[in-house]
Amino acid sequence: MAEFALIERIRARCVDARDDVRLGIGDDGAILAPRAGCELVVSTDTLVAGVHFPQATAAADIGWKALAVNLSDLAAMGAEPAWATLALTLPDDVPGFVDGFIDGFAALAARHGVALVGGDTTRGPLNIGVTVVGFVPEGQALRRDRAQVGDAVFVTGTLGDAAAGMQSLGLGPRDVPRLLALSAGTCEALLDRLNRPTPRIAAGLALRGLAHACIDVSDGLLADLGHIAARSGVGIEVMADTLPTSAALGVALDVAARLPLQLAGGDDYELAFTLPRERIDALHAAFASVPCAVHEIGRVVVAPGVRVLDHEDHEVAVPRHGWEHFA
Amino acid sequence: MAEFALIERIRARCVDARDDVRLGIGDDGAILAPRAGCELVVSTDTLVAGVHFPQATAAADIGWKALAVNLSDLAAMGAEPAWATLALTLPDDVPGFVDGFIDGFAALAARHGVALVGGDTTRGPLNIGVTVVGFVPEGQALRRDRAQVGDAVFVTGTLGDAAAGMQSLGLGPRDVPRLLALSAGTCEALLDRLNRPTPRIAAGLALRGLAHACIDVSDGLLADLGHIAARSGVGIEVMADTLPTSAALGVALDVAARLPLQLAGGDDYELAFTLPRERIDALHAAFASVPCAVHEIGRVVVAPGVRVLDHEDHEVAVPRHGWEHFA
Repeated sequence: MAEFALIERIRARCVDARDDVRLGIGDDGAILAPRAGCELVVSTDTLVAGVHFPQATAAADIGWKALAVNLSDLAAMGAEPAWATLALTLPDDVPGFVDGFIDGFAALAARHGVALVGGDTTRGPLNIGVTVVGFVPEGQALRRDRAQVGDAVFVTGTLGDAAAGMQSLGLGPRDVPRLLALSAGTCEALLDRLNRPTPRIAAGLALRGLAHACIDVSDGLLADLGHIAARSGVGIEVMADTLPTSAALGVALDVAARLPLQLAGGDDYELAFTLPRERIDALHAAFASVPCAVHEIGRVVVAPGVRVLDHEDHEVAVPRHGWEHFA
Repeated sequence: MAEFALIERIRARCVDARDDVRLGIGDDGAILAPRAGCELVVSTDTLVAGVHFPQATAAADIGWKALAVNLSDLAAMGAEPAWATLALTLPDDVPGFVDGFIDGFAALAARHGVALVGGDTTRGPLNIGVTVVGFVPEGQALRRDRAQVGDAVFVTGTLGDAAAGMQSLGLGPRDVPRLLALSAGTCEALLDRLNRPTPRIAAGLALRGLAHACIDVSDGLLADLGHIAARSGVGIEVMADTLPTSAALGVALDVAARLPLQLAGGDDYELAFTLPRERIDALHAAFASVPCAVHEIGRVVVAPGVRVLDHEDHEVAVPRHGWEHFA
């Protein structure tokens, strides 16, 4: 497949509907108009088969996820998505892949008004690189390094579904058994979270001016809270029995079995954030119009590191590694 | 090699020296301040071993070239480079690669004041994705689609060196013999053009307000002029005996042998552009302070397509394919 034919097919599927795209795909670069009074947030993430998604994942799900994990980074910064570029390296033997891929990519792009403004296609082992650009009013971006001792820690949505979805496929850490005897509906709900994560854009926008620090949960809750703690020079305590759980996960696994997935499974693409306790009422008011819940799960403390506590404030030992790769 | 250790090493080597980088590597995204009155030019290019550089290429040369081919796209749009992101997929077995890679990448970034503002590292077959962002005053970007009948066609620098460098390695099209009996100095000069291309940033800036259409010569002169012709709805005639030739290439190959390389070899990363004849004096005046020459090589005509003519205006048949891959 020639590079130009492929780019033309992608271009035909992703209309540059935005006024701020002066020139889209088809030249040496795109010409874009930034928004007055705004800073840009730029993020880039690569997806590799067997690492970021199971080898058997449908092309449309891969396309969706490639954009979703990048938009999730913009959400974590409180940015409004605007533009994306796509660098697609494809082996010879993937007929039909591009159409499916672009179906998924374009569906999510349309949902968030993102224009695909640049692309490059190359022959080689499958590799998907996406770079996204969003806007945030000057000085209002959410960061990892501003958590303060005394802050409450919250998370959007629910945790652990994607890891359980992986487990239902027989993937994940070697010592974790395959989930059996789940209903088709439960499996589907878990796999949907794995394959079609929801970037929490509206939540990120609502958190501007409220959150002290914010991150998206991609590596796993403890690892990602660890980034906030390290960059902010604080510690974080997580209350094990407060972790929000979906109906599907509640059916699939009991509390003890699901806790490691919720703490370390990753791939949730929820937002974890800290804010001063006096803003909690304002948080709930702001989230009245955001299509995901928020739950308080912990607190920011002086002692460095991230600890998990049970309901009697005793530390719980949790496996923190093992979900790093799908392969 | 853990992702975070690698990102930290890259970050330590590429200081965010620019005032417009509000927050660099280390969060979910970079926070960047666009320049008032300017549009952004965004371009993305992926490099794969054996396709975009010979397998045996030194890591530092790969790092240089990965940024150079992207900056060359900005040059072709008349943009001033500002920021870059790097998505690096690496196999396990490349000790020392990152240090060398970043040496080359950082050397070129420093030369053009480019800040590395985002990165992602992934394990898998070697794949290098770079996205660059530059500034151009509103409405002044150079494009492919504005060539006009009657324009003169020019090219910067010299053509064919990189293809001859490849040929000296025994690579390139199968029916092309390896160049033998070249002096070490000649070989080195040719390979330097292959491995360390010079993005023509200053030339691109000088061409704002002068050129009607511009492109960088990556796929080969004829292929790239073909893009200008197709997008502008015109044709282009190239005068075979006007193609600028380096001293090294003049020594390595006679006229007949080097012509296919200069027309179709690619990887030159020179700028090819068109402008009205009445601006030719202004062009030479503007290039007095640009560190590369410009040569007139053809004209824009009505009849579509790109043709090569000899000194009697007879069409010359030229192989137009064959240099597409190094592998």
